[in-house]
Amino acid sequence: MNYPNKSSRENITISHKNRGMSLEEDINLTNEYYLINDIAVVYKKPTPIQVTKVTFRNKIKVITEGYFKTPSTTDYNGLYKGNYIDFEAKETKNKTSFPLSNIHAHQIKHIENVINHNGIAFIIIRFTELNTTYLLRGTDLINYIKNEKRNSIPLSYIVEVGFIINENYQPRLDYINIVDKLIKEWIYE
Amino acid sequence: MNYPNKSSRENITISHKNRGMSLEEDINLTNEYYLINDIAVVYKKPTPIQVTKVTFRNKIKVITEGYFKTPSTTDYNGLYKGNYIDFEAKETKNKTSFPLSNIHAHQIKHIENVINHNGIAFIIIRFTELNTTYLLRGTDLINYIKNEKRNSIPLSYIVEVGFIINENYQPRLDYINIVDKLIKEWIYE
Repeated sequence: MNYPNKSSRENITISHKNRGMSLEEDINLTNEYYLINDIAVVYKKPTPIQVTKVTFRNKIKVITEGYFKTPSTTDYNGLYKGNYIDFEAKETKNKTSFPLSNIHAHQIKHIENVINHNGIAFIIIRFTELNTTYLLRGTDLINYIKNEKRNSIPLSYIVEVGFIINENYQPRLDYINIVDKLIKEWIYE
Repeated sequence: MNYPNKSSRENITISHKNRGMSLEEDINLTNEYYLINDIAVVYKKPTPIQVTKVTFRNKIKVITEGYFKTPSTTDYNGLYKGNYIDFEAKETKNKTSFPLSNIHAHQIKHIENVINHNGIAFIIIRFTELNTTYLLRGTDLINYIKNEKRNSIPLSYIVEVGFIINENYQPRLDYINIVDKLIKEWIYE
């Protein structure tokens, strides 16, 4: 959410060598890399907060009461080669499946809306215990939910229809080359 | 930011008859109309807030200290007929020009990025005292800023190169038909 400036980014770059960055941090750094290198314009949306009380301290507006709201949409959206892209990113400690309780019903609906309006929707899932991150097409996510009664997506399904996202030094999680494949599929389908 | 449910929306619909809704409220209702009628998928981004203290009251997470941050991008973005659209919305009480101090430098940069990556960027400006709302292309905004030394855009320029957005009962501010024109320009340019 808070895009680091150049000097703080360099610090973060060094800390890449250590494991333990969250998926969100990795994606934010990746998006920052894409932005700086003029590859794509993708941002994380701020967390929606309902502000109920504010006051002024030394002429600065301070929130003294607020509540976290459930997001209406996915966390990330943006623009790549003239295409609208939209995705959610989730981590799970589970080793064999991705629990669907991780995604809200209105996020599923939003992904469907994006697909219906010819945007490119997907979900990035990190299995933290397996140290592996996948990209799953929005269409494959929706198909699974509509056709299966299970409340989790087996890793085997994700391996079969999804894509592994390579982790590198820079960009950290290079998902945009997979988006390239999705765009080609979409053009030639 | 907070999308009303069906029943509360009906209440809001009734209150349309009264003047005095903010531009943000008008655009949110318009976007809701576009979403429900499957015309476009456009959302306002939540206001970015830096949360510095939280506590739990009756098992609910409550923010007890937080600060408003300067947004990195524009307020609205989304998807229309497969096109990425992105815009900022601003009101001014000024009757003859739009003060550029209303737009942050990084918002200008963001609009440039969107244009360079083949997205459709614009700004919606409401002159509250004139009861008139205009859509100005991102390219025309950038051109003005780059070529003129003034710190405000004269209304005459906006009238000349921009588009009046009609105000209706529903949708409240029908900006999408102007976006259609921008898409056609962009295809045939």
